[in-house]
Amino acid sequence: MEKSRLLNKRVSIAGIHIERASAVPLHLQIAAYLRSCILQGIFPAGTQFLGSRETARELGCSRTVVLTAWDLLYAEGYLESTPRGGVKVASVTAAHARPVPAASAAGASTGGTTAHISARWRSLLASEYETNWASEFAPGAPDISHFPFREWSRLLRQSWQNPRHPDCLDLPPQGHPSLRREIANFLGSVRGLVCTPDEVVVTSGTSGALDVCSRMILDPGDEVWVEEPGFVEARWALTAAGARLVPIPVDDQGLRVSEGIRRAPRAKLIVVTPSHQYPLGVSMGLERRLELLDWANKNDLRIIEDDYNSEFRHQDSMIASLRSLDREGRVIYLGTFSKIMMPSLRLGYMVADKRFVDTFAKGRARIDVHTSGIGQLALAEFMREGHLLRHLRRMRKVYAARRQALIDAIAAQMPNDLTVSAAATGLHLVALFTDRMRARMSDVEAATLIRQVGIHVQPLSQNHLEPPTRQGLVFGYGRLQTDDVFRLIARIATCLGSDA
Amino acid sequence: MEKSRLLNKRVSIAGIHIERASAVPLHLQIAAYLRSCILQGIFPAGTQFLGSRETARELGCSRTVVLTAWDLLYAEGYLESTPRGGVKVASVTAAHARPVPAASAAGASTGGTTAHISARWRSLLASEYETNWASEFAPGAPDISHFPFREWSRLLRQSWQNPRHPDCLDLPPQGHPSLRREIANFLGSVRGLVCTPDEVVVTSGTSGALDVCSRMILDPGDEVWVEEPGFVEARWALTAAGARLVPIPVDDQGLRVSEGIRRAPRAKLIVVTPSHQYPLGVSMGLERRLELLDWANKNDLRIIEDDYNSEFRHQDSMIASLRSLDREGRVIYLGTFSKIMMPSLRLGYMVADKRFVDTFAKGRARIDVHTSGIGQLALAEFMREGHLLRHLRRMRKVYAARRQALIDAIAAQMPNDLTVSAAATGLHLVALFTDRMRARMSDVEAATLIRQVGIHVQPLSQNHLEPPTRQGLVFGYGRLQTDDVFRLIARIATCLGSDA
Repeated sequence: MEKSRLLNKRVSIAGIHIERASAVPLHLQIAAYLRSCILQGIFPAGTQFLGSRETARELGCSRTVVLTAWDLLYAEGYLESTPRGGVKVASVTAAHARPVPAASAAGASTGGTTAHISARWRSLLASEYETNWASEFAPGAPDISHFPFREWSRLLRQSWQNPRHPDCLDLPPQGHPSLRREIANFLGSVRGLVCTPDEVVVTSGTSGALDVCSRMILDPGDEVWVEEPGFVEARWALTAAGARLVPIPVDDQGLRVSEGIRRAPRAKLIVVTPSHQYPLGVSMGLERRLELLDWANKNDLRIIEDDYNSEFRHQDSMIASLRSLDREGRVIYLGTFSKIMMPSLRLGYMVADKRFVDTFAKGRARIDVHTSGIGQLALAEFMREGHLLRHLRRMRKVYAARRQALIDAIAAQMPNDLTVSAAATGLHLVALFTDRMRARMSDVEAATLIRQVGIHVQPLSQNHLEPPTRQGLVFGYGRLQTDDVFRLIARIATCLGSDA
Repeated sequence: MEKSRLLNKRVSIAGIHIERASAVPLHLQIAAYLRSCILQGIFPAGTQFLGSRETARELGCSRTVVLTAWDLLYAEGYLESTPRGGVKVASVTAAHARPVPAASAAGASTGGTTAHISARWRSLLASEYETNWASEFAPGAPDISHFPFREWSRLLRQSWQNPRHPDCLDLPPQGHPSLRREIANFLGSVRGLVCTPDEVVVTSGTSGALDVCSRMILDPGDEVWVEEPGFVEARWALTAAGARLVPIPVDDQGLRVSEGIRRAPRAKLIVVTPSHQYPLGVSMGLERRLELLDWANKNDLRIIEDDYNSEFRHQDSMIASLRSLDREGRVIYLGTFSKIMMPSLRLGYMVADKRFVDTFAKGRARIDVHTSGIGQLALAEFMREGHLLRHLRRMRKVYAARRQALIDAIAAQMPNDLTVSAAATGLHLVALFTDRMRARMSDVEAATLIRQVGIHVQPLSQNHLEPPTRQGLVFGYGRLQTDDVFRLIARIATCLGSDA
């Protein structure tokens, strides 16, 4: 189109592509097209269009549609009215209009900006770490096939059929009072952890709790003790908060407190998994626990106790939580419903002393307000009616059987290469390399070989920050079918050249 | 109890307080009591207890309960076995046991720690800002009494009755694919914003989006342009991310871009509410919009467009979003379901170019994984079946009537003191003080006077970072009953000594 021509006569927009099947109303499609042409300089300032009646006829739509589109562009400043009652392109836009790259579709963004990404985000993305959730051996993936969806869906409906007014508005940042009460009861009965609902906060999973806690406790550059090897997912929130992670080795009694004191005496926070260390599965000994609390007390530090999966232990072998030994309110206890119910809920909880909870809640209200309230009341009822405990009892048996089948299969088929540590139940186990196996390959090499036959097993060293002192494979068994175990381990054994 | 006596004879624990009605099993109660006594030094190392049979009789419980409690403490290292088959307190604990302050109940934490709170958290909590959600005039509070709970609860049940396996595991960090598709359709039809589902992210409300975006875009100390006056809630996430907020004045064309360039030429991010500036309600003029995009393009910056409440506008007066003018993918568009559905959902969305979305999603997966999946599929169906659009159409009329009633009541009863700016619809309006009113009192003084008669109205200056240039009152009308308006404004008029 030639500019001078456009300015001298009234222009038809009959060529515009209209999608009648689109959810976007016709007048918005027309407006978007015209807006884009104006911005691109295709219709320069002063361009006049054919009358609304004629345009409507050309486009095969009602005149109202055309007038509505023009009104919109008029309100936005793209068009101005002419003395004859028509419209023309306003001048304001002319100065800003410039040709758009050919690749850009009208109205769509080209997405080509290289604008700044923060240093913290880049460090967050720096580490390569991949979990294949589809794998039979994905650590931490629960089996949801036994979940009582009937009850869960019934309670969700029930909680929203005729909701109380406060349940529709913003909830307290600590979470729904009923859910906090049920969590306190649950922890008392399943975990032997005595707490009041006031000390409980509903969080967006363990990650959500760690994300807020680490920003509340740490300034950028502050040191944190983390277990080595340890839970990679937990380290990310700390990294995002700008913390300096100091890996502290774990032995058969758990985190080596003396080594922590030696490596980072000024650390502001300690993050541990005392009941069932991730990934090794060891339980922190009492002496270590008291040593840890003692150090925290003397140095005015906080400890985050991630008590993941402790619900899957048999009660008789239950170890008291670190928090129940804590007399100064230093321990922040975290748990999650992701494993005992299902991951997509993104619901967890934190138990901490009332003062910490208050400061946490005040700040949280200003960051992400509260955890989604859609399922909080339903979950409280689900717990109150006993469905969670029943599900837990069932799953303890299911997982115990899977674990045993896995241990048996490894013992039968790879006795010279792998040793399974006799840790308490959970959703995964670590099979450590024997010296013979270590001499043959690294765990990363083993995992790569195994992947070639389509099986994904995590190398233990993926959980290390420093060069690993142990080599091994992390086998999740949450979704492992007992019938498949022997066959899968046989394939791994063949692939690694193991002999029985 | 005297130590030497304890060591010489076997001790009864008959004095223990057991709550039979408690959800905490008896053996855990007994274990918690003993653990606490051992830690406090009440039962020193070597203390032996009466036999399990005798203890059970004294406590009036079964022998199994006592043995289970002892097993637990034995596993934890508190007890050791005696040659005669009994138990005694182990020595390891003795060194660490010390008296507990009298105030501390057995097993409960005292919560007395003064441990470090980060500087960012303290700055987050520094500002005083209070919203009284119960107030008839709370800005931004929607009316949920017309919400189709029947449909919503039915769809929640339906979505969980027999869920697809992937809907139970972790969702993609961008959110459920069905919901992203529906949001893209919704924005096309309601907002005229053309985007693909790939450009949409489901967020934990606008706050959740701002929280992640600000950490992704900003390094601590980076400058951000924020509107003055502006949306306080939006500023908090930026503060928590360590940003330096630079207030840029707003006039009747919106944010004064030239002033931004003068005050903070090196700012890394610009946060605006172009459709309906919060709180003033002005719409940013086209010239300003293009000026803003131009500056962002030249300086490789990002812009966050918080398009809150734009759904409540009448389509005919709809202003195109800033994002639809953006040809370089610089604008990050935010919206929320809190206002058009209800706040407790904590569900919102972000639209940005694909590259930004990818980087956002990768980092987010490592921070808070994804927004709770409990309601995502149900919301997608709710939108697909048209319930959201229907609700929106109904509420537009309801809110328009409330707004008009409020404007009429102010005009009738306080014409000399307040002027309502003729902004587009939303859930609040600003009544600016006339010169006469300004001469009499400040808006903070007015709000204080009004509060004395039990009515909460927000002073406009609460939304300012710098000394305010305007004085006024912010009236939310989302939950205001039309019948009450005249009476409420009459009380305010009386209380401020206004004449009609």
